[in-house]
Amino acid sequence: MRHALKGNLIWTEEMGSFRVLKDGYLLIEDNTILGVSAKKPENVPVADFGSSLITPGLYDLHLHAPQYMFSGLFMDEELLEWLDKHTFPLEARFADMDFACKAYTAFADDLKNSCTVRASVFGTIHRKSTLLLMSLLEKAGLCGYIGKVSMDRNSPDILTETTEEAVSEEIRFIDEASSLKNIKPIVTPRFIPSCTDSLLSALGAISKERNLPVQTHLDENQSEIEWVRELCPESRSYADAYERYGLLDGRSIMAHSVWTTEEEMDILSSHDAWVAHSPSSNMNLSSGIAPVRRFLERGVNVGLATDTAGGSSLSMFRMITDSIQSSKLRWRLQDDSLPPLRFSEAFYIATKGGGSFFGKAGSFEPGFAADILILEDSSEEMTVLAPELSIEEKLEFYAYRTPDRRPIAKYVDGKRII
Amino acid sequence: MRHALKGNLIWTEEMGSFRVLKDGYLLIEDNTILGVSAKKPENVPVADFGSSLITPGLYDLHLHAPQYMFSGLFMDEELLEWLDKHTFPLEARFADMDFACKAYTAFADDLKNSCTVRASVFGTIHRKSTLLLMSLLEKAGLCGYIGKVSMDRNSPDILTETTEEAVSEEIRFIDEASSLKNIKPIVTPRFIPSCTDSLLSALGAISKERNLPVQTHLDENQSEIEWVRELCPESRSYADAYERYGLLDGRSIMAHSVWTTEEEMDILSSHDAWVAHSPSSNMNLSSGIAPVRRFLERGVNVGLATDTAGGSSLSMFRMITDSIQSSKLRWRLQDDSLPPLRFSEAFYIATKGGGSFFGKAGSFEPGFAADILILEDSSEEMTVLAPELSIEEKLEFYAYRTPDRRPIAKYVDGKRII
Repeated sequence: MRHALKGNLIWTEEMGSFRVLKDGYLLIEDNTILGVSAKKPENVPVADFGSSLITPGLYDLHLHAPQYMFSGLFMDEELLEWLDKHTFPLEARFADMDFACKAYTAFADDLKNSCTVRASVFGTIHRKSTLLLMSLLEKAGLCGYIGKVSMDRNSPDILTETTEEAVSEEIRFIDEASSLKNIKPIVTPRFIPSCTDSLLSALGAISKERNLPVQTHLDENQSEIEWVRELCPESRSYADAYERYGLLDGRSIMAHSVWTTEEEMDILSSHDAWVAHSPSSNMNLSSGIAPVRRFLERGVNVGLATDTAGGSSLSMFRMITDSIQSSKLRWRLQDDSLPPLRFSEAFYIATKGGGSFFGKAGSFEPGFAADILILEDSSEEMTVLAPELSIEEKLEFYAYRTPDRRPIAKYVDGKRII
Repeated sequence: MRHALKGNLIWTEEMGSFRVLKDGYLLIEDNTILGVSAKKPENVPVADFGSSLITPGLYDLHLHAPQYMFSGLFMDEELLEWLDKHTFPLEARFADMDFACKAYTAFADDLKNSCTVRASVFGTIHRKSTLLLMSLLEKAGLCGYIGKVSMDRNSPDILTETTEEAVSEEIRFIDEASSLKNIKPIVTPRFIPSCTDSLLSALGAISKERNLPVQTHLDENQSEIEWVRELCPESRSYADAYERYGLLDGRSIMAHSVWTTEEEMDILSSHDAWVAHSPSSNMNLSSGIAPVRRFLERGVNVGLATDTAGGSSLSMFRMITDSIQSSKLRWRLQDDSLPPLRFSEAFYIATKGGGSFFGKAGSFEPGFAADILILEDSSEEMTVLAPELSIEEKLEFYAYRTPDRRPIAKYVDGKRII
């Protein structure tokens, strides 16, 4: 079915420059963008959203659904203490399906009402509750990937599988997830410290056999990197270790990459991997600031991520502004050869940058997925300068001032879900 | 009149540890806290706020009221470009009283509905519109200081006074402001680059004669500091220059102090000055991160500040979490001898730390000003973990997840204004 949306269209096709069409039309057929037009298209129903902003959806490349319930809590710790003291004990509770149902229902509701259209999500080691999470997100109308987390070492007993269990449960998980349409499984070794060599190799093989993408953590924290060095003495680097286990052969998301070296960037770009840049989490857990500008210069794919609940917000607009703020501090304090991200660049990363992991997504170019947000122009009610602002400025205002606002309407893969 | 408020009381009396009284009573007489009690006080009316959090008010030590209208806009520039391209031309418009009335009415409404109880605020060079701002904030029920900004050099013609005008207008401003009760004038040289030596000396003298506090900017940005070095070749440092002009002799607020040296800290502590730490602004304008922990170690007074509109949020709860996040990055990237701020410490700085500029304020100790917030426990509706959380955790949740929420009730100097 062909139809059009009318409003103030704004999107990015390439890094660093907005495309804007004031009072424009976005033409859609089924689940695909046909293009934009300044003129009213003929013989097509038009939904007129007035002065609202119409943008591509935002793509969250890394978040932990079970952690959403403690987003904004326990923020006085660094990564490894935070995992042991809070995260692992709380994730263990997802063995209880009643608890999981309550927590995941709240998560699915809030993700549905956010500006995220597709996401790549960690569950827990528990197959059943992770499948429940998948069905809840599918029912909410979202698209994306969810992984049953694999962990067979260095974790509390209540959150550890044997290697055999981890492998057999992963295969069963993938099989049982095949009934879903829009939410698909993704191979998810938590990170090297939580997975034995045998498990990592087995997961690499499963990803290859089943043609499934992979998500995991890379180079988040210096103590973690040192630990990986001890655990994998034969590897030249953390990324090299993942490469050896065959975990970079298909499509893969490497969350964080705060301390990734030039040599590791060679590995990531040779495998066409995605970095999930998680600025809020990297501040909260005192991890540091990822060299996003350098990834871009090197042609490494980058998307933005909330990393709930290392990150303390589920809002991808908040991640846009957090990524800009932290890039400014990195430029000032760490490396002034890498200029800060500009608003248009961070917006590109949150849309087409991360969207590319899901196919042609995150732009209004013809053939792209119809993932669309209709946003109230919040400047109209909030600042006397509103009548003088450009569409770009109105979008910047929205990102900084009203990042948690529910969109007026949201289309995911052509289907309106808000 | 004596009365009590019932709820979950939480406050800090000293750096680093919360005081908590679950289902406690806060006893108030007129505009003063009498103390807290676990038992119901006799013969006193009690307002029962159930499971709400009851905290001291938050004190915003530095913000620019005319800039509120562009908060969250123009964030791609550094300080000096940002001033020239956006801030100065927009501040010039406050010569127009109709425009000023519209912009300041919106600002006063939003500040009233925020968690800020008292503030130290910059207006513009315009006496009339700054007086209007004062009367609007007084009418809103807030307390604090507002300055007519003084500028007589290095500014666009439309935003520059002659030295004589600057001095005479400042005196007239102070005289005309004397009719107000809760909002008082404060001497406000913008910063050294905007003020000639004669003006700075005259303002120092006025502050002394009229016994008025001073607010200005210090050590925000490296290019600015270099400029001050050129402008004041006889001074050993930026702080030394303010000292020479007599601007540190009374109570004073030095906004930012990002790059303040040990020698300058000697000057600040010898004058018992306050640093207004503005973490959001210091990220947005790529300024850097102030050494807050070092100020605390040295006994320099520190309060938190939004610095609207270098800062992109009017929320002091957001400043609490921004100050924690940026202190973590400073620890990781710049100086690991200064541990990050913990939540209880940042809360102390936002309450009793900044409150001390206004007298005995920011705590529930007997004799403190009755500046009180009643906050909905947002964890109850937002996370399945709520029944298991401590009061401290509920407050942390509020700060990270719902920093922009309107308080249920707000008392300023004993008067309920929300």
